[in-house]
Amino acid sequence: MISSETSARAPFAHKHLLGIEDLAPDEIVALIDRAEAQIEVSRQVEKKRTVLRGRTQINLFFEASTRTQSSFEIAGKRLGADVMNMSVASSSVKKGETLIDTATTLNAMHPDILVVRHHAAGAVHLLARKVSCSVVNAGDGAHEHPTQALLDALTIRRHKGTIRGLTVAICGDVAHSRVARSNIIALNALGARVRVIGPSTLMPRGIERMGVDVFTDMRRGLADCDIVMMLRLQRERMAGAFVPSVREYFHFWGLDQEKLGHAKPDALVMHPGPMNRGVEIDPEVADGPQSLIAEQVEMGVAVRMAVLETLAEHLPNA
Amino acid sequence: MISSETSARAPFAHKHLLGIEDLAPDEIVALIDRAEAQIEVSRQVEKKRTVLRGRTQINLFFEASTRTQSSFEIAGKRLGADVMNMSVASSSVKKGETLIDTATTLNAMHPDILVVRHHAAGAVHLLARKVSCSVVNAGDGAHEHPTQALLDALTIRRHKGTIRGLTVAICGDVAHSRVARSNIIALNALGARVRVIGPSTLMPRGIERMGVDVFTDMRRGLADCDIVMMLRLQRERMAGAFVPSVREYFHFWGLDQEKLGHAKPDALVMHPGPMNRGVEIDPEVADGPQSLIAEQVEMGVAVRMAVLETLAEHLPNA
Amino acid sequence: MISSETSARAPFAHKHLLGIEDLAPDEIVALIDRAEAQIEVSRQVEKKRTVLRGRTQINLFFEASTRTQSSFEIAGKRLGADVMNMSVASSSVKKGETLIDTATTLNAMHPDILVVRHHAAGAVHLLARKVSCSVVNAGDGAHEHPTQALLDALTIRRHKGTIRGLTVAICGDVAHSRVARSNIIALNALGARVRVIGPSTLMPRGIERMGVDVFTDMRRGLADCDIVMMLRLQRERMAGAFVPSVREYFHFWGLDQEKLGHAKPDALVMHPGPMNRGVEIDPEVADGPQSLIAEQVEMGVAVRMAVLETLAEHLPNA
Repeated sequence: MISSETSARAPFAHKHLLGIEDLAPDEIVALIDRAEAQIEVSRQVEKKRTVLRGRTQINLFFEASTRTQSSFEIAGKRLGADVMNMSVASSSVKKGETLIDTATTLNAMHPDILVVRHHAAGAVHLLARKVSCSVVNAGDGAHEHPTQALLDALTIRRHKGTIRGLTVAICGDVAHSRVARSNIIALNALGARVRVIGPSTLMPRGIERMGVDVFTDMRRGLADCDIVMMLRLQRERMAGAFVPSVREYFHFWGLDQEKLGHAKPDALVMHPGPMNRGVEIDPEVADGPQSLIAEQVEMGVAVRMAVLETLAEHLPNA
Repeated sequence: MISSETSARAPFAHKHLLGIEDLAPDEIVALIDRAEAQIEVSRQVEKKRTVLRGRTQINLFFEASTRTQSSFEIAGKRLGADVMNMSVASSSVKKGETLIDTATTLNAMHPDILVVRHHAAGAVHLLARKVSCSVVNAGDGAHEHPTQALLDALTIRRHKGTIRGLTVAICGDVAHSRVARSNIIALNALGARVRVIGPSTLMPRGIERMGVDVFTDMRRGLADCDIVMMLRLQRERMAGAFVPSVREYFHFWGLDQEKLGHAKPDALVMHPGPMNRGVEIDPEVADGPQSLIAEQVEMGVAVRMAVLETLAEHLPNA
Repeated sequence: MISSETSARAPFAHKHLLGIEDLAPDEIVALIDRAEAQIEVSRQVEKKRTVLRGRTQINLFFEASTRTQSSFEIAGKRLGADVMNMSVASSSVKKGETLIDTATTLNAMHPDILVVRHHAAGAVHLLARKVSCSVVNAGDGAHEHPTQALLDALTIRRHKGTIRGLTVAICGDVAHSRVARSNIIALNALGARVRVIGPSTLMPRGIERMGVDVFTDMRRGLADCDIVMMLRLQRERMAGAFVPSVREYFHFWGLDQEKLGHAKPDALVMHPGPMNRGVEIDPEVADGPQSLIAEQVEMGVAVRMAVLETLAEHLPNA
């Protein structure tokens, strides 16, 4: 049941947000409800809140990211936190320091929240065990990207009223996508029927066991879908794998108006960004009336504000 | 007429500051007047104002710049804004995202002001059409750098009392210089007589049509000038062009005491920085009593505070 | 005499903090006392103070550093300053601007405090002579790193009660280490007996004249020591020098439990970080019960808060 009543009955029981897989369905709903209440903050002229005043948030990014890091930075600053960005390029990792030494060093400076992105699946969990502050996973390898799944769920719910009963197609490079993985878990938990569509070479073995239907043909997979969620073609992560040419990829799996016509007439299109226009998505669709892509970014700030605020409530003496 | 009375009669009618070419003379004066009032803020121990409290300013720099980015960052923070820096190196541009997607993504996070530098002329205008917030051009290719022209005008006015009737020489690599272009427009609008001096290979065709006198000989061009404005030799932008050797360039067009002696005895020397000492300017002149170079930097912060404050007044509900 | 009474009688007489060599013993003690009082701030949920509100702190780092830059950034923000980071990679240094021009440019923007790290010994002193704000040396070549020596002294004092009469061994790459140099000066000033231990090729000529005993054998040097301070093997600074293999280095000079057994039973182990695990220190020792390494990082924030606050009191009109 997706309603704001639920959240009142579900105090958040976690110190960290490492993955959607750790959350009960009512915890997911509670976070989304809370994010809904944060949307208005960013739409006002005076966007400053004081709930995180005096708290220190460190964004520790071992992989570059415009949108995710900016979104967390804006979210933290609007809530009044002191936010620090630490990117790999300027960090001690170059000097041979281990991930754990970096984590324990930062931890000794008493941050309240560490937002971490890392190229290796599991690295953020490892780090969370070594620090005393709260950790938010901002993407670890092909594993999880929980705030992306939360913002996607919020975006869908705002347009469809509920997630229960919707048919959602996640399309493209499923194998390398933490976005796909977190979304499959979240959408299943919230009662959607999830399909994955893509070339068999980009489909992880055993994906069926996550409770999804698998398609390799876009038109058949999109039939009667309510939501078409495109994935970025992660070319930088596909070393060694068989990768079709960009032209061929677009022909078979790129979302254009014709393929989108196979989904429901009121189907909505999503993409976590950054887009490869003309590769996984046609610009006409990306910028068209069914696209929610810009709104996803807006919801991202609201979701991160909700997550930061929720975790801050677990601070000792908070 | 350059006076603070003018500004009271000229409400700023623009959402963006993209170029000096969009401003009427009294709008230029109004901004300079306002900047004059901001100088004192940075000279105090407690430099914090609250006029931009709760506003989000994003500095989006596709080209690196110490002084311009720092100047905008300091200006925004002193006015109380939350300021975020986003540089190309750590951005999604590397991942193939388009300029427009970067802009619409940031826009969806509800910044109030985007300060943008880009290596392509016109890129900032393109971006401004795609976002709902205010955009400040912090330099686009060889096109415009409006806050530089404003700070130069403010610096000159403080020393000469007025700009009307002054003879200003802009010297060096005019062809590749957005500083030259914005200054020519601003100084002409404010009633100065503008000369450009430099090797013919670094002089854009048709520059005369901008209302300037063209010289290739420094001594003749500097004769009777009130202001000598040196330009940085933009070696990084001159791929393919005929470039004289550094030694030869300094001999003919570098500003030393002897050449400066051809200008008026009370002539003042300016440079937008960063300087190539010994290339376009002799260290003795750069650090000499006629130099205003450090003061230009100080005026830069004041001008950017004035610009940010002025644009913020146009925010909805502000 | 190391007591908090001393500090009341010793007003800090310096505009800058460039090196421990400029400080009288009671000034060192006064700074450590003040840092002691700042420790509690970072341990609270609400860590924000207002003593530097409206001040501008610029961290100007010509060498990358996670921990030092973060530490200064956190310290400044917790005291309420506006903090800006400026790293070499994105600075005008690439464009050929001189160190001095960078300094005078930043100075013209009216920062209150410049925190500077530079790869050349003496560069920070040079810079301090050209600016009107306070300058903190965050490490200059192999010369000084005063806040590291202060945080080390604070850490030792908290565990041993006093520094006077302790025997401290500084071990490893002494020749390339500003940490060693600043610590030798500080520890001698505070009444410790200081030994340096390392291969003769990594021992600066004439080091004896700094008032230390020199050892090349770890076991003999560690005998009866109270504190074992390991240095990072600065491989990036050793171009051209004879460098033993990592394996050989660890065999002779790496700190493991066996070698540590030659020091006093209650000896404590320190390292400025980032560590080369398995090179200069065995992970078992680094993470063991005698290690103070994480606490050093915590003390670093407190010491930098004390330094920033102390220098701010010298601001005109402060």
